Amino acid sequence: MTSFVDVHGMVGWIARTGTESVIAGILEYLEHDFRRWESFEKSARVASHTPFGVIELMPTSDQESYAFKYVNGHPSNPGRGYQTVTAFGVLADVHNGYPTFLAEMTVLTALRTAATSALAAKSLARPDSAVMAMIGTGSQAEFQALAFRTALGITSLRVYDVDPDAIAKLVRNLLPLGFAIHVAGSAAEALDGADIVTTCTADKARATVVADELVQPGMHLNAIGGDCPGKTELDAAILDRSSVVVEYAPQTRIEGEIQQRPADFPVTELWEVLTGRAPGRISAEDITVFDSVGFAIEDFSALRFVRDRVAGTAFEQRIELVADPDDPKDLFGLMGAFSPVG
Amino acid sequence: MTSFVDVHGMVGWIARTGTESVIAGILEYLEHDFRRWESFEKSARVASHTPFGVIELMPTSDQESYAFKYVNGHPSNPGRGYQTVTAFGVLADVHNGYPTFLAEMTVLTALRTAATSALAAKSLARPDSAVMAMIGTGSQAEFQALAFRTALGITSLRVYDVDPDAIAKLVRNLLPLGFAIHVAGSAAEALDGADIVTTCTADKARATVVADELVQPGMHLNAIGGDCPGKTELDAAILDRSSVVVEYAPQTRIEGEIQQRPADFPVTELWEVLTGRAPGRISAEDITVFDSVGFAIEDFSALRFVRDRVAGTAFEQRIELVADPDDPKDLFGLMGAFSPVG
Repeated sequence: MTSFVDVHGMVGWIARTGTESVIAGILEYLEHDFRRWESFEKSARVASHTPFGVIELMPTSDQESYAFKYVNGHPSNPGRGYQTVTAFGVLADVHNGYPTFLAEMTVLTALRTAATSALAAKSLARPDSAVMAMIGTGSQAEFQALAFRTALGITSLRVYDVDPDAIAKLVRNLLPLGFAIHVAGSAAEALDGADIVTTCTADKARATVVADELVQPGMHLNAIGGDCPGKTELDAAILDRSSVVVEYAPQTRIEGEIQQRPADFPVTELWEVLTGRAPGRISAEDITVFDSVGFAIEDFSALRFVRDRVAGTAFEQRIELVADPDDPKDLFGLMGAFSPVG
Repeated sequence: MTSFVDVHGMVGWIARTGTESVIAGILEYLEHDFRRWESFEKSARVASHTPFGVIELMPTSDQESYAFKYVNGHPSNPGRGYQTVTAFGVLADVHNGYPTFLAEMTVLTALRTAATSALAAKSLARPDSAVMAMIGTGSQAEFQALAFRTALGITSLRVYDVDPDAIAKLVRNLLPLGFAIHVAGSAAEALDGADIVTTCTADKARATVVADELVQPGMHLNAIGGDCPGKTELDAAILDRSSVVVEYAPQTRIEGEIQQRPADFPVTELWEVLTGRAPGRISAEDITVFDSVGFAIEDFSALRFVRDRVAGTAFEQRIELVADPDDPKDLFGLMGAFSPVG
């Protein structure tokens, strides 16, 4: 039997545990796995593009456990009542190849993305950062805000979105949680006085959500919305005067902000910063960019964390996902007795 | 909600419908999809190899539906009480990226592999074929036998396996179903007088299950066990004097029998034979080889067939695999009300 956490189980478990506590736990698992980055099998995700959006499979393995995530990205979905991103993921035992754990990952992806952003910002943002601008207040936004509060103590937000309803939703969700929120009338106003800038918009286009002249020395840019070929958010000129950190360079060069730059554009991988192999932020005037597109190891970490925590609780179910006959060579015997055909 | 067919549902549905009837139905869907081969997005599967075995993801799409299968191959599994191959698969709607159907595919893979073998043999075996040799009588064997009876009327089998228990199992399963079975003491004896030869062994090695001198003019070889880099079953010399048909050449050159031959070794893809673009068997003396490794489109066909047939029956369940909040941008709202943090 395979352990299964459905949407109800995941949301119930998060509500019981506390979102910030879950983010802190994922962050710990992420840090552990990023530090042993070289022990993972890594490849760019496998994407199926259509005019409507993209469906991706993201596998990785540490030679003990194997994980993959199914995830879609359909920017026009919210207009039709659907989520832009939905996801589910699986853990398997490498020794016998059996899937051991299946979980919803629409919510979990938002949590692990936020935890990854916060993990990077702990190394890349100025330690005295106090104010975060958020451009884009869709599905991911509240999770990002909570992750930055959990990891860096940020409680002051300056938010902007082209959709006023999305801003109202964020304010409704976050104000009761103790955030100070300034609703800006433009991206420029949102960035004014910000130490950290999180961009998280969904347009499947080369957009300039943040113009070069708005970026001040010392800022850290957490750019998570440019995550698909042809989908970027930052003015390319920002990249040229920043230290750019990515998850897995071969994938980010295809999907991230740096797709706007030549294949030899210098970047550092986050694991190198976390293990001390490369510097993160060099000075208080340094501009740092975390060009985040999401990588399979983050799902691996998040899935393992949830699996470890829900084991034995009422939040997990058991499903019969793979056949397991008593005699492993007698798969046919499962079908029971058949009548001879004349 | 996502439709889900678990092992119990799949086996129950097959038992109710009849294995041969299910194979015939899959064969029809396969033929339809192979005939529109050019409308599919195709890529070699994504494999994660370890010393224990392999875990693979097999995606494809026809720009309307997307499908992928998770499947493992662990040759040493039966010795430890596990299946060599387990699998599950998913269908998704390309328009919004939502997964719509999840199914066990350990049993279904055996059925679709058998249906694909039979589909190929209908074009490649001599029309007067009456006797099939089977080398390897493991999990797949009974399904293969039933498929060849359904599609070609084969009722006479000559079987051989290095594991006597596996032979006994096959005889126990198939004798009551009206097959005439000759148990051979060697592969050579099994092939003596056979019109069709199915090889389906699990060794993860370059094995010679069928030696060149055993292969007679007019034979059709259904080689399904050589399906992994470093895993082959046929004496390479057989390939040189045969017409070799494959599913998807770029994948088969990596995984199939033809990995023993140069990259320009001439092969025909099955869809070309089925659409009349290329000849199948040319003469009664022709030796034909279906070098089958399994391809994603076969899983696409099988999943769609099951989904269409189980819809609305008690064999399908509904699971909450992806979150679907009323306001698609308010994923966070799912978590309900949280207490403000001090």
